[in-house]
Amino acid sequence: MDNPHILSRKQKRSSEEIYNQACQFIPGGVSRNTLFHEPYPHYISHASGCYVTDIEGVQRLDFANNMAALIHGHAHPKIVDAVIEQIRKGTAYTLATEAEVLHAQLLCDRAPGFEKIRFVNSGTEAVMAVIKASRAYTGRAKIAKAEGAYHGTYDYAEVSQNANPTNWGDINHPNSVPLANGTPQGALNDVIVYPYNDIERTIAILDEHADEIACVLVDPVPHRVGLMPGKPEFIEAIYKWTRKNGALLAFDEVVTFRVSYAGAQQNYTVKPDLTALGKIIGGGFPVGAFAGRSDIMKVLDPRESKLLFPHSGTFSANPVSMTAGRVAMELFDEKAVLKLNALTQKAIVQIREAIQIADVPVSITGAGSMFRLHLKSKAPTTYREAYQNQEAKVLVNEMLDYLFYEEKIMMINTLACMFSTAMTQKEIDILSQAFLNMFKRFKPQLDSLQ
Amino acid sequence: MDNPHILSRKQKRSSEEIYNQACQFIPGGVSRNTLFHEPYPHYISHASGCYVTDIEGVQRLDFANNMAALIHGHAHPKIVDAVIEQIRKGTAYTLATEAEVLHAQLLCDRAPGFEKIRFVNSGTEAVMAVIKASRAYTGRAKIAKAEGAYHGTYDYAEVSQNANPTNWGDINHPNSVPLANGTPQGALNDVIVYPYNDIERTIAILDEHADEIACVLVDPVPHRVGLMPGKPEFIEAIYKWTRKNGALLAFDEVVTFRVSYAGAQQNYTVKPDLTALGKIIGGGFPVGAFAGRSDIMKVLDPRESKLLFPHSGTFSANPVSMTAGRVAMELFDEKAVLKLNALTQKAIVQIREAIQIADVPVSITGAGSMFRLHLKSKAPTTYREAYQNQEAKVLVNEMLDYLFYEEKIMMINTLACMFSTAMTQKEIDILSQAFLNMFKRFKPQLDSLQ
Ligand SMILES: Cc1ncc(COP(=O)(O)O)c(C=O)c1O
Ligand SMILES: Cc1ncc(COP(=O)(O)O)c(C=O)c1O
Repeated sequence: MDNPHILSRKQKRSSEEIYNQACQFIPGGVSRNTLFHEPYPHYISHASGCYVTDIEGVQRLDFANNMAALIHGHAHPKIVDAVIEQIRKGTAYTLATEAEVLHAQLLCDRAPGFEKIRFVNSGTEAVMAVIKASRAYTGRAKIAKAEGAYHGTYDYAEVSQNANPTNWGDINHPNSVPLANGTPQGALNDVIVYPYNDIERTIAILDEHADEIACVLVDPVPHRVGLMPGKPEFIEAIYKWTRKNGALLAFDEVVTFRVSYAGAQQNYTVKPDLTALGKIIGGGFPVGAFAGRSDIMKVLDPRESKLLFPHSGTFSANPVSMTAGRVAMELFDEKAVLKLNALTQKAIVQIREAIQIADVPVSITGAGSMFRLHLKSKAPTTYREAYQNQEAKVLVNEMLDYLFYEEKIMMINTLACMFSTAMTQKEIDILSQAFLNMFKRFKPQLDSLQ
Repeated sequence: MDNPHILSRKQKRSSEEIYNQACQFIPGGVSRNTLFHEPYPHYISHASGCYVTDIEGVQRLDFANNMAALIHGHAHPKIVDAVIEQIRKGTAYTLATEAEVLHAQLLCDRAPGFEKIRFVNSGTEAVMAVIKASRAYTGRAKIAKAEGAYHGTYDYAEVSQNANPTNWGDINHPNSVPLANGTPQGALNDVIVYPYNDIERTIAILDEHADEIACVLVDPVPHRVGLMPGKPEFIEAIYKWTRKNGALLAFDEVVTFRVSYAGAQQNYTVKPDLTALGKIIGGGFPVGAFAGRSDIMKVLDPRESKLLFPHSGTFSANPVSMTAGRVAMELFDEKAVLKLNALTQKAIVQIREAIQIADVPVSITGAGSMFRLHLKSKAPTTYREAYQNQEAKVLVNEMLDYLFYEEKIMMINTLACMFSTAMTQKEIDILSQAFLNMFKRFKPQLDSLQ
């Protein structure tokens, strides 16, 4: 394929030209703010494995993997073949499909806590469903969530996602900070914000709402908080609190399901009652799911005399996402998970060497096949520690641009890398060399940030 | 293709066997309650055009079209080809795509009110985004919605969706009836329920919340209310009310965009400020979108100094849904819309004849390429009139089963038909003959319902 375009019937245009057209019809010219880039975002031509080629013909090594959604990189031939076979037979019906049943079993077989599962179309829908299922089961309205944690765009789930020093308030009682203008006060009142990994304060805050909380929502390795794993004592303390107070423990594993064969929950002695899933379980197609205890998931069962949580969705469990997801997860078996995690750990070792050689105040957090750089010598352990001021944010963007334009490397805009099974030692070497170059180049700014 | 299965590597199994497996892993064994069917739902083998073949090899004529989501029926060759070309290049990236820009322009070019558009993954997400955009723009929390109207699974949007005589309350002040158990009282308080097509009462109700309403949500042909078009005076009265009171008029055209070239809004002199879209604009793949006035959609623009409505989504505007949707909508051009609507009107004429011949108390509502049967001689004009008691519901299910098993016809579970361009006079004749048979067979029960 020599410089193919997405639409061969169209004249080849530059990213700048396409973006100018986009601005006429799309607010900000982008469909997802995470892709916004000044002066214009870059448009894709094609991608394969861990390499992505833009419409200008520039090939880049992809550590973003559509915001952690691709575990095998792009266009894995086995997924492509299975999906094409399905598409020729149709993509969406008013009948049930075997594809959804096979994928449901596969996921339930992986994690002991997944007794029953339902599919939806996004992580946002999955988190919304987990919260609604918790409410339906407990009859309570409130949820608790971590300051800084991203859980998609459901009002309740996005409270305090962007809390900053001007509005986050006392750490003993973090404010429920609205993300969107016009967020109903009623929604804010129903969200209790806790400081991640801070056992004492979190339990004290939860205790103040002991009878009101439907679920405590926990991302076991919350990316926007700082991509540091939840401490086992922290997760256990919350678990115990929920047992004592009739609340549910709900994990958001939309991102972290990649961390271990059964998701990050595999690494704790206590298990969540409900789990939200998404991203990699769709094999590159729109997906979300929520799974958990049979007695809770019964709120969704239309055979019950009183259906507590009626739930549907036009494209939920469509056979394309189900087929792609099943093939992707079959390929991501226990051996593949361990191999990918080992490769990621190898990369981290090499990057730590680069940090030492360049003598820069940079630290690393992460788990499994993902890590995040922090522009401080000591790795942060809380959201407020990990919080970046304006100066740091500007520097992060400069570093991302350097990697994108000079080193031809794509990362997530938090300076995070999400690995795919398409990567080998070669890509790890490219990454660590690129980081070394970057560290050397930005050392003065990095030093002066401290 | 001789009796292919979805998964050729699997042994062929019966629907009952697959459902037994499904029940082990999925609450109720179904991913969407709309597909639930006793003693078990039927599993798909493959579909093409307007014919669907189940895993037992039975072929049926499909008037459900995945709950109105397919405008060309199944596996349209042009959509299949375009999608396969895209899939080989990848399905989801952390870069922008030309596919989203082309689809955005196509949709904005169709409806004058669509000045800017954003894509999401479902109608649920689209309605949620419309409500959040209205709040972000007006700074108000409350919304108004019609009793009985279905708008997806966002708490606020689903209030009173299933209101019934035991809980709907005084028509002058319909109750905000929660759908799911545990729905926060705060959410219920923020939803004002109005009686569809009842101008005086609706305006009186809205007046009581004049300064508090962010948007009045209106489905111009609300399926679950009764699939009767909004009266022009009704829509105009709401429009005027919103102008006077600083609120927005938001249309849910997730289903009704099929009604005219520019959606059902084409048929009114007043235009909504915001519109939610979904279903057919994805060409068979998961999709949602919301479009409207530039000054409102600016709340989503990351270039603004204060971003009032931060919004993203891992699979939003993915190039598969965008490509399939664009090809589908290109094929559904003005001529195709008119032709399909004419075919549907022809079917309605034939069905009215069947009603007369069989002499049954059945009426028809609808618009464009969709209609719904009501088991009463006079077509209902309001939700409470259209409401079916338990006896009627049982009869509806018997009729649906008769059509499914005896006549090999699939319909939506409200006795609604959603036409596709794959249909011809032949299918219309099959449908009206099947209805005639059904009316004759069920005449005693139909008569005794009245
Ligand atoms: C932890 C987490 N939860 C939920 C979501 C929402 O998923 P989606 O973007 O598919 O709606 C995301 C998306 O990035 C996420 O990172
Ligand atoms: C009018 C209307 N709005 C919104 C939705 C929700 O769309 P989805 O099922 O894609 O979430 C539907 C789905 O049937 C609908 O009919």
